Amino acid sequence: MTVFPRLTPVLQDALTKLLGERLNLSTAICERHGQGEAHHPGMPPEAVAFARTTEEVSTIMQLCHAYDCPVVPFGTGTSLEGHTAAVAGGLCLDLSEMAEILETNGEDLDCRVQAGVTRKQLNQYLRDTGLFFPIDPGADASLGGMAATRASGTNAVRYGTMRDNVLGLTVVLADGEVIRTGGRARKSSAGYDLTRLMVGSEGTLGIITELQLKLYDIPEAISSAVCSFDDLEAAVNTVMLTIQSGIPVARIELLDAVQMDAVNRYSKLDYPVAPTLFFEFHGSEDAVKEQATRVGEIAQEYGGGDFQWASRPEDRNRLWQARHDAFYAAINLRAGCRGWPTDVCVPVSRLAEAILETRRLIEEAHLIAPMVGHVGDGNFHVLFVVDTDNQEEMARAARVNTAMVEMAIDLGGTCTGEHGVGLGKRKYLVREHGEGAVGVMRRVKMALDPKGILNPGKILPDRE
Amino acid sequence: MTVFPRLTPVLQDALTKLLGERLNLSTAICERHGQGEAHHPGMPPEAVAFARTTEEVSTIMQLCHAYDCPVVPFGTGTSLEGHTAAVAGGLCLDLSEMAEILETNGEDLDCRVQAGVTRKQLNQYLRDTGLFFPIDPGADASLGGMAATRASGTNAVRYGTMRDNVLGLTVVLADGEVIRTGGRARKSSAGYDLTRLMVGSEGTLGIITELQLKLYDIPEAISSAVCSFDDLEAAVNTVMLTIQSGIPVARIELLDAVQMDAVNRYSKLDYPVAPTLFFEFHGSEDAVKEQATRVGEIAQEYGGGDFQWASRPEDRNRLWQARHDAFYAAINLRAGCRGWPTDVCVPVSRLAEAILETRRLIEEAHLIAPMVGHVGDGNFHVLFVVDTDNQEEMARAARVNTAMVEMAIDLGGTCTGEHGVGLGKRKYLVREHGEGAVGVMRRVKMALDPKGILNPGKILPDRE
Repeated sequence: MTVFPRLTPVLQDALTKLLGERLNLSTAICERHGQGEAHHPGMPPEAVAFARTTEEVSTIMQLCHAYDCPVVPFGTGTSLEGHTAAVAGGLCLDLSEMAEILETNGEDLDCRVQAGVTRKQLNQYLRDTGLFFPIDPGADASLGGMAATRASGTNAVRYGTMRDNVLGLTVVLADGEVIRTGGRARKSSAGYDLTRLMVGSEGTLGIITELQLKLYDIPEAISSAVCSFDDLEAAVNTVMLTIQSGIPVARIELLDAVQMDAVNRYSKLDYPVAPTLFFEFHGSEDAVKEQATRVGEIAQEYGGGDFQWASRPEDRNRLWQARHDAFYAAINLRAGCRGWPTDVCVPVSRLAEAILETRRLIEEAHLIAPMVGHVGDGNFHVLFVVDTDNQEEMARAARVNTAMVEMAIDLGGTCTGEHGVGLGKRKYLVREHGEGAVGVMRRVKMALDPKGILNPGKILPDRE
Repeated sequence: MTVFPRLTPVLQDALTKLLGERLNLSTAICERHGQGEAHHPGMPPEAVAFARTTEEVSTIMQLCHAYDCPVVPFGTGTSLEGHTAAVAGGLCLDLSEMAEILETNGEDLDCRVQAGVTRKQLNQYLRDTGLFFPIDPGADASLGGMAATRASGTNAVRYGTMRDNVLGLTVVLADGEVIRTGGRARKSSAGYDLTRLMVGSEGTLGIITELQLKLYDIPEAISSAVCSFDDLEAAVNTVMLTIQSGIPVARIELLDAVQMDAVNRYSKLDYPVAPTLFFEFHGSEDAVKEQATRVGEIAQEYGGGDFQWASRPEDRNRLWQARHDAFYAAINLRAGCRGWPTDVCVPVSRLAEAILETRRLIEEAHLIAPMVGHVGDGNFHVLFVVDTDNQEEMARAARVNTAMVEMAIDLGGTCTGEHGVGLGKRKYLVREHGEGAVGVMRRVKMALDPKGILNPGKILPDRE
């Protein structure tokens, strides 16, 4: 049994001495911090601490460790699986004021940022350098949060995920100790890969306060295109053949007809309401032309319509902003409803059957649920647009979610490609990894956070 | 104090019952298994067990765990930092008879192999499929061993290292429990990244028995070229500008004049005895031509000679085999001597100063020590060709090694880019990662192997 409050008066006094007004106990602030963007019920912390330096985070952790107080790290609150819910009470540690870009090294294509820097802030900052950071989840998330959830986005098929693009981290451990992982070398065989252990650990093993990230040269040429198909299968087959042909597309995104309708309404566009692929090609002028031609031939083979091209930066940005706004567009389909986003990832060869079966499950359950996908990786999303007060409807969504996840795992895939486990996917972890591997995760958690104060209740399933 | 024998008569009986003649106690076999390819003194195990299945490995570990017997996993014995030395006695677990390719999935570009399959065996097997596995350390190492040491090679600048190319693993834990990590999906956010925790753990956290690996389409066009330079600096500057220009070279390798002399003699070639770059370009016909032209222009700018091209497969193979044989070629420079290979990795912008300072240190110490490098990653190697009986010479090599490693760390790099820590690099781990991060590594080790029976004495430094 958890005993409340976990934020005892003596701990509160100590934190107030450290942070002054940056320890905030107002109901509004606490409620906002206990709620992500998705359907999970909000669970507010007892207070929110706004930290500004790694040293402050270290002192906060020393205090919370001494007083057994749970700590939930928080970036922008845009995670989707209930990661920020304070299920055991305690403190929310908001890192959004740690938003400094500490260094950029153009010659080595890397940079160092504080955890609260957002992806758009970084790219805005880099704009005149000819460099960019490619990882782009839908929201303008913080880079610390993106590392914590092992986020990816539309560019992952070419540039990888946060797993591949974090060179090193500064992490504050459960007891306040500060460690550095990784470094600036592009590769290393020097010991256990603590960077990759922290990436995707969702704040349960340590609090990321700084990141060393890879950067990339903005390609000489970039070209985007949109292509509609008669049915989902044709679109997915185009994706599979493109990937299997080894064409280095930078982005290849699927939106189903329901989602295209939502995007048209929300972003005031007039694309056909049909399964649609969004492409982007990066490279030299010649390479981009060659890639586009080859993909165009494949799309034709499956009955795709003509490519609608967007080569001017403003047109491309409009196109991709519409894609990134898919979540908000979908929620707008039904007034007063919330989004329940879920994602799975399967081997690319199983993508068609996985997507078609998911579409069938959605229709059978009479749900409004657009589908989008970073399909070049085999990763696709369903967004249930639900009335969270309607228990029967929520139960139908839950059944489809479980059926889709179990199918993905049975096809050799995973219960989440990029959203993370949080609260929502914990129950599938043993099915995916087996008791043995989940047992190893528990041992690692116990080794690094024996008191269980770091984002309790996330990732690891409750013991039976 | 370690008490010998660790392989007690009762344990030996149990293992003999399980393995019959595949438990080998002969002095010759034990000595061969306690010795890597490098200068580290051999430390033979008390017996060698040749396992054939994951289940056998599991039973062996259950027995060794019950009897507190150290276990040193062994693939081909080609590691370079004393990884296979049985410093605490016990059993060597040889996985070379686990050499089956279990499945290949052309559509998804992946395969599943037993840990004893070597990289050349896999590529031989794949030859007619149009696919290949790119990671290529010098030796024809086992894929299990390559994962355990986080190996890479000449292709890493384009295809990454073992860290990037292992999708999942089957691992036997210290107590014999079998776990599966990762899966076939190209990306996942489902829990702690146990795959990356095991990759590079050098047999100290578990024994890898099977691997799911990424494969790649053999490029439409491949072209290799060799180019000589007047001095090291010009060659390194060519590398730096190539990488900074974002040209997607597949391989870019540096051999210094000493190494070129050794290669000419060993492989019966007649390249100029001068600092030399080996290049390889992968892609479509047009892309390869474009890359080659741009790199040619950069090389010209730094006074490089003409490119000598090798486009026919047999010419390319000859060229790269010569590069892969650099280690053996170097040892051949001095009769009766052994090789002491060492490698570091630095940010690419610091490569010129790191290489030039290392060359200076070698000359100042009057050592025979060719240099080669996977310089596109900032990774370079020195091979001290030493008389291991000459203590004064060994001390000089040790001093240069330490100075080179400390310089690399001070430049933001790492004490080993791809050889691993083993015995040789343990003393630099704290300098590179700090006490805090090394402390976390110790906690992870303690959590997974509390008895300390898995490859004891490797990676983690002795406590002061």
